[in-house]
Amino acid sequence: MRQLIKNVHLLTMDEQYTEIPNAYVLIEDETIQQIGRMVEPLPQADTVIDGNEGILLPGMINTHTHVGMIPFRSLGDDVPDRLRRFLFPLEQVMTKELARASAQYATAEMLLSGVTSFCDMYYFEDDIAEAVAEMESRAILGETIIEMATCDFTTPEQALDWCDETFIQKWQHHPLITPAIAPHATNTNSPELLARIIDLGKKHQVPITMHVAEMTYEMTEFAEKYQQTPIAFLNDLGYFDHHFIMAHCIFTEESDLALLDDKQVSVAHCIGANTKSAKGVAPVKAMLTHHWDVGLGTDGPSSGNTLDLFTQMRMFANFHKTYEHDRGIFPAKEIVALATIGGAKVLGLDTLVGSIEVGKKADVTLIETQSLNMFPIFDAYSALVYSANAGNVSDVWVNGKHLVANKKLVKHDSQKLKTNLMKQMDTFIDEAQKRAATIK
Amino acid sequence: MRQLIKNVHLLTMDEQYTEIPNAYVLIEDETIQQIGRMVEPLPQADTVIDGNEGILLPGMINTHTHVGMIPFRSLGDDVPDRLRRFLFPLEQVMTKELARASAQYATAEMLLSGVTSFCDMYYFEDDIAEAVAEMESRAILGETIIEMATCDFTTPEQALDWCDETFIQKWQHHPLITPAIAPHATNTNSPELLARIIDLGKKHQVPITMHVAEMTYEMTEFAEKYQQTPIAFLNDLGYFDHHFIMAHCIFTEESDLALLDDKQVSVAHCIGANTKSAKGVAPVKAMLTHHWDVGLGTDGPSSGNTLDLFTQMRMFANFHKTYEHDRGIFPAKEIVALATIGGAKVLGLDTLVGSIEVGKKADVTLIETQSLNMFPIFDAYSALVYSANAGNVSDVWVNGKHLVANKKLVKHDSQKLKTNLMKQMDTFIDEAQKRAATIK
Ligand SMILES: [Zn+2]
Ligand SMILES: [Zn+2]
Repeated sequence: MRQLIKNVHLLTMDEQYTEIPNAYVLIEDETIQQIGRMVEPLPQADTVIDGNEGILLPGMINTHTHVGMIPFRSLGDDVPDRLRRFLFPLEQVMTKELARASAQYATAEMLLSGVTSFCDMYYFEDDIAEAVAEMESRAILGETIIEMATCDFTTPEQALDWCDETFIQKWQHHPLITPAIAPHATNTNSPELLARIIDLGKKHQVPITMHVAEMTYEMTEFAEKYQQTPIAFLNDLGYFDHHFIMAHCIFTEESDLALLDDKQVSVAHCIGANTKSAKGVAPVKAMLTHHWDVGLGTDGPSSGNTLDLFTQMRMFANFHKTYEHDRGIFPAKEIVALATIGGAKVLGLDTLVGSIEVGKKADVTLIETQSLNMFPIFDAYSALVYSANAGNVSDVWVNGKHLVANKKLVKHDSQKLKTNLMKQMDTFIDEAQKRAATIK
Repeated sequence: MRQLIKNVHLLTMDEQYTEIPNAYVLIEDETIQQIGRMVEPLPQADTVIDGNEGILLPGMINTHTHVGMIPFRSLGDDVPDRLRRFLFPLEQVMTKELARASAQYATAEMLLSGVTSFCDMYYFEDDIAEAVAEMESRAILGETIIEMATCDFTTPEQALDWCDETFIQKWQHHPLITPAIAPHATNTNSPELLARIIDLGKKHQVPITMHVAEMTYEMTEFAEKYQQTPIAFLNDLGYFDHHFIMAHCIFTEESDLALLDDKQVSVAHCIGANTKSAKGVAPVKAMLTHHWDVGLGTDGPSSGNTLDLFTQMRMFANFHKTYEHDRGIFPAKEIVALATIGGAKVLGLDTLVGSIEVGKKADVTLIETQSLNMFPIFDAYSALVYSANAGNVSDVWVNGKHLVANKKLVKHDSQKLKTNLMKQMDTFIDEAQKRAATIK
């Protein structure tokens, strides 16, 4: 099947930042087959999509989220220590049906906002994988390992055995889904468990993703217990000889940067969630200087609320410019790069996606420029970072499949996904309201 | 004419933060006539609008913008000293036709994003007033006074004479438009001119609005020349015995807060523009502690890019929580208050608008909650601050007139407004591209 997307302003996000103001892109089956200027005759195709002078960019990549957590959105947003007051207790009533319905909903929401790949960490990750596969998004899906009884396993050892024997093998060869192991955080797993996790990751050659250097109490605990930063501690365990995606890294220290200078380091930077919770701003400029790979992440709907990368790009610009006292730092095109090819590198998917280049998989997003907030456009990168919002996303393709057309899901009904999620939420809502009442 | 808006989650933003989960609002002509719970029989009305469980809140109030500057959007966003490199030179080719087309476009864009009142500072403000009046938005419109030849007047004295003799008198009794005088900044007008301006404001009883304590060089200049802060200097000139709307106030000092303790102080806080340009974060918590009135502002489309207050509310939350190291500070409802009743106080319009209360003018905004990003809603304020974007605005009323319905302008065609603006932009675009080329 050949699909021609014509009449677009193309941001390829290749290494040269090649930009073609009046372009077409030809997709053959799942692959980008041809890119060119709008000069007649255009290539033949089975389907022609008129981009109407919109901006075509690589599908955006959300490097850290929790798709099972839609039920938590807008619950206790401004309350201190939500993790222990809301999240852990309410996760006791999480069911696999609820996780699955939530994952389907969250994946739909991301597709509608132009996100075509994401990295997830949650429970019931096999059910989540079923949901994401059904939605036909690309994703790395990590089963959470944590040193306590959870909604899906009584012990972390059981969870790890299940990853080893069932989960990883089931999904390892799926064209869109990559199974992963997701130790919750550096201080919620014992050193022994963390050692076993990295061994298992290496054995199966699957990514590991974890919350790292996110909490002040985490930093204090490591300093006191081990006289080390969490990153140095993980380095000793061999995490940086593997594909390891660290979420947050807010409290990355100079010594961490120096320590990992010859390693491949992958950071999911969640500026919106990190600053909403008043935790701070990770030193991204320094990370990039040390050749760390950095992508943008929303964190879960409970922490970051929105799952789109427009909010994150805008937050990124404003926070990092202000923190570096330099309005010229991180020009818009570098921020669009973080949201696309940067994220692809973090997820280890950059040979497949993250830029619009011949031979890559066709994961692309079209932004309409008809809405009033999208005019004029002297600089298309600026328009994406400073003007656009998720409501401007018009069309989305993943692996060559046209999943969003004219701001609507092609194969699913948003309202049905919502009804389906609501059906699973009764017990959760009761418990949530009880908890909220005790806190007000 | 009686309009009934039914089946909404009502945030009145009155002093008690009265919230009615299942409410109706009855508008009679331009006034809010009745508010209640959805209990049959509902009041009779000529028109019934089903809010479909959306969130109804007061129309949002943008306390600082430059509606004539749509042509500048996305031009040189990440370039240092844009004011002198792009803005001042390009404003030489600004025409009244361009300012007018831009103002009409910007007003439409704001209405579509739920903004029902704004405060503007620009040139050709009479033409802008004609455009805004045609769009039927509420606004305070200030003619810029600056110590240089501008696109509309050769000298600031001419501009002031025109305000005195023509502009103010023409608009002073308009039901929606309030004329104002807008000295550009503390350091771009001489002390003599600033003295004449406050006299003129007091003579006509019209508001004055100015950029204050925004630039580091402004602060240095005042310290060196006058051994005073700009705010202390303006206080000596009598600005705080008058309705004076200060934009920015990033570099407000402790001494300023103490100095004005018994004055009415009005600040248009533009967090998005201030941080995009790496200037800093104004001490809003301290301002509120000192009983200053604070509203949110987008600044112009050149500085803040978007004209909606969702971006500002989200930026406000993240920046102020991070700066105060406290995730609990500024809970969402206080931020919604800044965007509505807070802004109304800053603009001196709080007896008319800013909350949904019987007897007030019907300036109201309806946010749809059908889109996937708007579910679930445990807290409607949280949903507005952390989840919503401008694309979720469904319906807008100003002074009882239904100006936006189902995400579209009722009386105008957005694409025609755009075509009309583009027609006026030829010379501007040529000059802009020449300037941009010299800078790259
Ligand atoms: Zn997380
Ligand atoms: Zn301004």
